[in-house]
Amino acid sequence: MGVLEIIEKKRVGLELSKSELKEVFMGYNDGTVEDYQMSSLLMAITINGMTFEETLNLTDLIIASGSTMDTNKVKGVMVDKHSTGGIGDKTSLILGPVMASLGLKMGKLSGRGLGITGGTIDKLESIPGFKVHLSKDEFIECLNKVGFTECEQTEEFTPLDKKIYNLRSVTGTVSSIPLIASSIMSKKLVVGADYILIDLKVGSGALIKTKSEAVELANTMIDIGKAYNKLVIPILTNMSRPLGDNVGNALEVLEAMDVLKGKTGVLRDLVVELGSVLYSRVENINLDRATKEVKRVLDDGSAYKKFMDFVRVQGGNIDKIELAKKMVPVKSKTDGILKDISASDIGELALELGGGRMKKGDAIDYGVGVVINKHIGDHIREGDILCYMYQNDEIDREELALRAFSIVK
Amino acid sequence: MGVLEIIEKKRVGLELSKSELKEVFMGYNDGTVEDYQMSSLLMAITINGMTFEETLNLTDLIIASGSTMDTNKVKGVMVDKHSTGGIGDKTSLILGPVMASLGLKMGKLSGRGLGITGGTIDKLESIPGFKVHLSKDEFIECLNKVGFTECEQTEEFTPLDKKIYNLRSVTGTVSSIPLIASSIMSKKLVVGADYILIDLKVGSGALIKTKSEAVELANTMIDIGKAYNKLVIPILTNMSRPLGDNVGNALEVLEAMDVLKGKTGVLRDLVVELGSVLYSRVENINLDRATKEVKRVLDDGSAYKKFMDFVRVQGGNIDKIELAKKMVPVKSKTDGILKDISASDIGELALELGGGRMKKGDAIDYGVGVVINKHIGDHIREGDILCYMYQNDEIDREELALRAFSIVK
Repeated sequence: MGVLEIIEKKRVGLELSKSELKEVFMGYNDGTVEDYQMSSLLMAITINGMTFEETLNLTDLIIASGSTMDTNKVKGVMVDKHSTGGIGDKTSLILGPVMASLGLKMGKLSGRGLGITGGTIDKLESIPGFKVHLSKDEFIECLNKVGFTECEQTEEFTPLDKKIYNLRSVTGTVSSIPLIASSIMSKKLVVGADYILIDLKVGSGALIKTKSEAVELANTMIDIGKAYNKLVIPILTNMSRPLGDNVGNALEVLEAMDVLKGKTGVLRDLVVELGSVLYSRVENINLDRATKEVKRVLDDGSAYKKFMDFVRVQGGNIDKIELAKKMVPVKSKTDGILKDISASDIGELALELGGGRMKKGDAIDYGVGVVINKHIGDHIREGDILCYMYQNDEIDREELALRAFSIVK
Repeated sequence: MGVLEIIEKKRVGLELSKSELKEVFMGYNDGTVEDYQMSSLLMAITINGMTFEETLNLTDLIIASGSTMDTNKVKGVMVDKHSTGGIGDKTSLILGPVMASLGLKMGKLSGRGLGITGGTIDKLESIPGFKVHLSKDEFIECLNKVGFTECEQTEEFTPLDKKIYNLRSVTGTVSSIPLIASSIMSKKLVVGADYILIDLKVGSGALIKTKSEAVELANTMIDIGKAYNKLVIPILTNMSRPLGDNVGNALEVLEAMDVLKGKTGVLRDLVVELGSVLYSRVENINLDRATKEVKRVLDDGSAYKKFMDFVRVQGGNIDKIELAKKMVPVKSKTDGILKDISASDIGELALELGGGRMKKGDAIDYGVGVVINKHIGDHIREGDILCYMYQNDEIDREELALRAFSIVK
């Protein structure tokens, strides 16, 4: 069957066989199927859906397009964690050391940021000397030595996912549940952890807008995991506000360290929630006991020590982190109660400050960003500082910053 | 609204406004919207459809992308005719002279063939000296002088349609009724005839497979015509067999001339049907009277004379038409009754003989082709000649030719 017939079959809503999926997706990977043909098929998939069988077959194909980690060499139980995105989300930099302190091995391949969404690799690169490129052997070595490692996912892994993902982002086909599931799961399965925690963000600002879509995605990922004999643990969390106070690469590393040193708030709460669920499932203990353990390693400094080991082993020097030269306070123009902080507005502000990329390959300024100074529910008085902008230029962004804060009388 | 949002709006089945359609389709015409974005949108349109308002707006945009004829200079009532395709379809070469003999002006812009489908321009080019490129002024001049002219539709007209059409053919989006309607109608509307006859082929071998799709397409085209104050007359005809006996460029010109000289059969029958309906609508007379008039100009030689004028005025010399050097008879291997002749098999045979193009820009051999020697229902005896292959090479294509003929005991 030719590529056109395959596209037409999906256009009318029929199921594609494994060999048909292989023909068109491997053809795309090899360059014999054109972008405009793949985008046409992706739109048909987005509208007409895919069966679980198709989704699993596509996941297989994406995995087969590249390399995989040799997790036989990992000593102990390997866990992984994925977040579907969020402004200021530095959770894995805290959760990794926590899991390592509890004797598990958390090894992650991560990406870079694009647009208002940040990427963990950029955050880590804000630490001078930190090595984000590890060979497969170095990855296993760091993981066995520290218990937590995170490095850049290179072209070696799931190259087909990268091609599909890039095309989806410019063709209006990002919202397809089967395509999201196969993309996330293939990237996790090549790393090979036995337990895969998925922090699934739901809400108006997230890729997944509704609870029912989130449940469908979660179930699809669980089933793909089962087919590979892996336990997938999806946790639905709300995303409409920035996660924590700091947004910007170096600023987020510093906030992660603050939490590891005992800082409380929504960020610690999320880490405790995610960590407890994951740990309870791995150790097959009840959630209360798991929560106690997670809090213990956060409170007694052992997770902080793991973080410092992680940075040191990958060559980073925390003391050399540099923030932007200027810290510009943004003051409220009104009195009232802080009702909401818009994640997308704060994300856009950080992007404008130079902390993100407009397009792939853009240079970014690691030291810039936003530190939020007030929390939801706070009473605000005119002149109160809502946030600080860390910046290296002279541009006035007060208006953009104020837009993020909804203050009601 | 950005291009991505527009694609997403159509993905979820919403109606696009005129300005949204303009942004994305004119962006595509200008090259700022990429092929892969347009193909994604075209798939969403193919699956989710378009409202009549959208279809009309798209038609407007396609027309606005290029030039139009100045039909104010045409003396008399201008008619046009379009066929949605068919193997061996040389109807317009007969219908044009018929209409001209009846005092109407039939001016057509036509295309070239690709794959097994032929193009009238290629057929006309088989006449040595025939000028297929006319300027707009020459087009009007020929039309006023003879009453029938046909020349190549250049890039000057509906360039956006060409871009969309080419993309649809490789992205599984050819079957969309609104896209077919806007494509056909824009190409007819730039010529500007008052009466537009559409020979709508329906059947397994045609673009339109079912009667209900054909009716939908017909009604859409009628309504687009109304919006432009033009009368569109769709006629549904069956397409599963070759139209007439000859397939191949020069051979088809000769068969058209045969019909103009009195040859009877399915081809003449179709011309009489199409011509009668068109003439009765233009003159507002009953169909019987119109049929009588059409037959009269076919029988008394006036349509034949018009054809010769048409060829002469555009520089062609009928006497110099050259057929292929060899005429290879294909003999039946069995006895029985001829039940069917496959249009697509005959089309493929003609293509293999060198009479068509595998891809755009390929050179073609005007003299090759197939002449069918038996008709449906004929009693066939082993050794009877089913068809002749006109060829300039030594390749044995007997097997391919025999495949086209279904003979049952």
